[in-house]
Amino acid sequence: MKFQRPKGTRDFYPDAMAVRNWIVDRWREVSRRSGFVEFDGPIFESLDLYRVKSGDEIVSELFHFTDRGGREFAIRPEMTPTFARMVAEKAGALARPVKWFSIPRLCRAERPQRGRLREFFQWNIDIAGDDSELADAECIFVAADFFRAIGLSADNVVIKVNSRNLVASILEHAGIAPDRMDGVYAILDKRDKVDADAFAKMVGDLGLDDRQVEVLLTLGDAKGDEGLRRVEELVAGSEAGLAEVHRLKELFQMLDVMSVGHLCRFDMGVVRGLAYYTGTVFEAFGKGGLQRAIAGGGRYDQLIGQMGGPSMPAIGFATSDVVIEDVLAEFDLLPDLTEKADVFVIDADKAHFSHVLSITANLREKGVDTLFSYKRQAMGKQFKQASAKSVRRVIVVDERTESERVVGLKDMNSGAQIDLPLESVLADPFQSLEGQS
Amino acid sequence: MKFQRPKGTRDFYPDAMAVRNWIVDRWREVSRRSGFVEFDGPIFESLDLYRVKSGDEIVSELFHFTDRGGREFAIRPEMTPTFARMVAEKAGALARPVKWFSIPRLCRAERPQRGRLREFFQWNIDIAGDDSELADAECIFVAADFFRAIGLSADNVVIKVNSRNLVASILEHAGIAPDRMDGVYAILDKRDKVDADAFAKMVGDLGLDDRQVEVLLTLGDAKGDEGLRRVEELVAGSEAGLAEVHRLKELFQMLDVMSVGHLCRFDMGVVRGLAYYTGTVFEAFGKGGLQRAIAGGGRYDQLIGQMGGPSMPAIGFATSDVVIEDVLAEFDLLPDLTEKADVFVIDADKAHFSHVLSITANLREKGVDTLFSYKRQAMGKQFKQASAKSVRRVIVVDERTESERVVGLKDMNSGAQIDLPLESVLADPFQSLEGQS
Repeated sequence: MKFQRPKGTRDFYPDAMAVRNWIVDRWREVSRRSGFVEFDGPIFESLDLYRVKSGDEIVSELFHFTDRGGREFAIRPEMTPTFARMVAEKAGALARPVKWFSIPRLCRAERPQRGRLREFFQWNIDIAGDDSELADAECIFVAADFFRAIGLSADNVVIKVNSRNLVASILEHAGIAPDRMDGVYAILDKRDKVDADAFAKMVGDLGLDDRQVEVLLTLGDAKGDEGLRRVEELVAGSEAGLAEVHRLKELFQMLDVMSVGHLCRFDMGVVRGLAYYTGTVFEAFGKGGLQRAIAGGGRYDQLIGQMGGPSMPAIGFATSDVVIEDVLAEFDLLPDLTEKADVFVIDADKAHFSHVLSITANLREKGVDTLFSYKRQAMGKQFKQASAKSVRRVIVVDERTESERVVGLKDMNSGAQIDLPLESVLADPFQSLEGQS
Repeated sequence: MKFQRPKGTRDFYPDAMAVRNWIVDRWREVSRRSGFVEFDGPIFESLDLYRVKSGDEIVSELFHFTDRGGREFAIRPEMTPTFARMVAEKAGALARPVKWFSIPRLCRAERPQRGRLREFFQWNIDIAGDDSELADAECIFVAADFFRAIGLSADNVVIKVNSRNLVASILEHAGIAPDRMDGVYAILDKRDKVDADAFAKMVGDLGLDDRQVEVLLTLGDAKGDEGLRRVEELVAGSEAGLAEVHRLKELFQMLDVMSVGHLCRFDMGVVRGLAYYTGTVFEAFGKGGLQRAIAGGGRYDQLIGQMGGPSMPAIGFATSDVVIEDVLAEFDLLPDLTEKADVFVIDADKAHFSHVLSITANLREKGVDTLFSYKRQAMGKQFKQASAKSVRRVIVVDERTESERVVGLKDMNSGAQIDLPLESVLADPFQSLEGQS
């Protein structure tokens, strides 16, 4: 009987696993150096946890099941509900700000197609318990720091930053009714995907007055410092709007001080679809051949309260291993991940094999990655195996290993090989071979 | 609305996550130093994959669901079927022996109770494509190497080793019918859980002849070198039996050469319940307050063929994070995992805060874990926060940072604090403070 992996999932053979581990290691490293600590929750949660956050329509996008007790569960499709649940549960005991990261495995019952997988890994950065632009800045800094850490520059990526509160202030100030806001958000969200004429037509179809149409057309083109200035003029009479502009300016100034300002830009076109975002929102956009969002996040100041916790502001972002692999491939940034070992132990004759085993075991115990051949065969073949594993050093065992406790030590880069006392090689298999004879 | 995690699962708050990461790091380290490479598969597989290996009765122990296309899946309850499937699929292209490890998240629809969780992490070590006792020895070595790496000695753990083939040879040699073998295995498996009388009664109830009863009673007490000698006498007339004894002796000799023989012992009472084991079987048993199996494995030479691959011998073992946490707790072996950072940057006055941000960002980019306070407050309070995070060094920013590019650098262990040029501190925040003024 032949079996295949489920469609839309991946088998991580060692080469693919090395890539995944490399990405995950970078995520951990970048998170930790900014003082974030790791957490995790169960791979499945109560189905209701997702219903509360996203409504009943989410259920068809989840892998869900019931246990023998009739309880409904779903494999987690995102981490934010788990984060909110866990923070809510211990909110009183957690020092603020809560700075946590996680690298969850997530599943979504997508129809499998290119770029949309049913299973993937996500990096989540979240700060809870602080509503200042400083928290916003640190969150965006971590995203920028990661991009820089994998070798991306302003030629490859831009982090578009906006404020949902600012958009709301402007629309309110322009007299657009609250029940039309969602429709306007949806159009703004599409601004970068269409040309100016198509955008003007979508705005025109909303049935707004001339002044309101002009405001929306201005918003649609509001990008960068100049865009922010024009927006400031638009909200000249709105105290709330001006406060939001001020907050954004402070945020950009902090990002400059943190040396990542050149990667960030104001962009009124980023509003992020999800209903629960409340303030600062941002989206990293891959340039060049990518032309797509590669990370996104924002403030969600209400969610922890909704999950049964105290009112607690929060901001976070996420990206996935699938999209980061695409980024690495597009910009040719994946390092050489060829499997490597430190030492390979070879016997000149099978009579000496027990020394191969004892030397191997001794070095492994010391933390040295050590290999040997399962087959007793000619030394040339064993050397070939050693080369295939890119080892740094080869240790050769022969009749003198038993009688004189001497082994050969070869440097596989320089080709130098000398005989040394076994104890010396066990103590330091990487010792210099130069000047020795 | 309040939510709770599903029963039988765990929330990994940062402290618990640090423990899990510590265990996983040891698993990776020990696997790699013996030349194993990591792989992974999807969190869910076709339900049939588990039906084929374990029969229909497995279904009630799984979390299973169907997708919109009506396909049946289950969250993986173990990794071996995925390993066998993946090796079977690429068997022709894989260099042998295949030495892979994995650290899967697994779920079982257990009735939640103490020590039996619905979700856990498992460490799997597998060698495929080699049927020699050398592969058996390397597999057992890795288990022993891990125990040693976390600080366990022969006082804490014993690895009981047996051969299913040897048991079969003896029973066959004693004339016990093949259809009674499973019943005999079950009784042998219980030997260590009952006293000699109870064991004798169970053997008596099998309805065997006197000679067969005597053989089983001998088997029940066959442990260690002496036990293996008595078993050798039992199979004196059986070529297959003697070959198995010889193989076990070779295996124990290799384990001695690899310096882990003192952790291993022959034990006829270990037969391992699972039907698919074919040769060498072993079980690590925790002594002291534990008194339970803490890892187990064996040969499964048929499984890869059953999964659609070529006939390919294999041996492997597994242990879980739940049981290893119990071991660490029982023997007080968990190291100090208190959250630590490298550097904390403090401002003497909020007017200098932008230097805090720029220094923080600069150090983080260099890979230094760097923190600062979100609140502008008295230096004493900021120092308190720095102490709470156990940082090594504190950098103090004041008015001279702007005017003279000078900062204070304090060693939090010695208490020494001196003023230094900012550039020097950015270049090496851990520089020696002795002899400087």
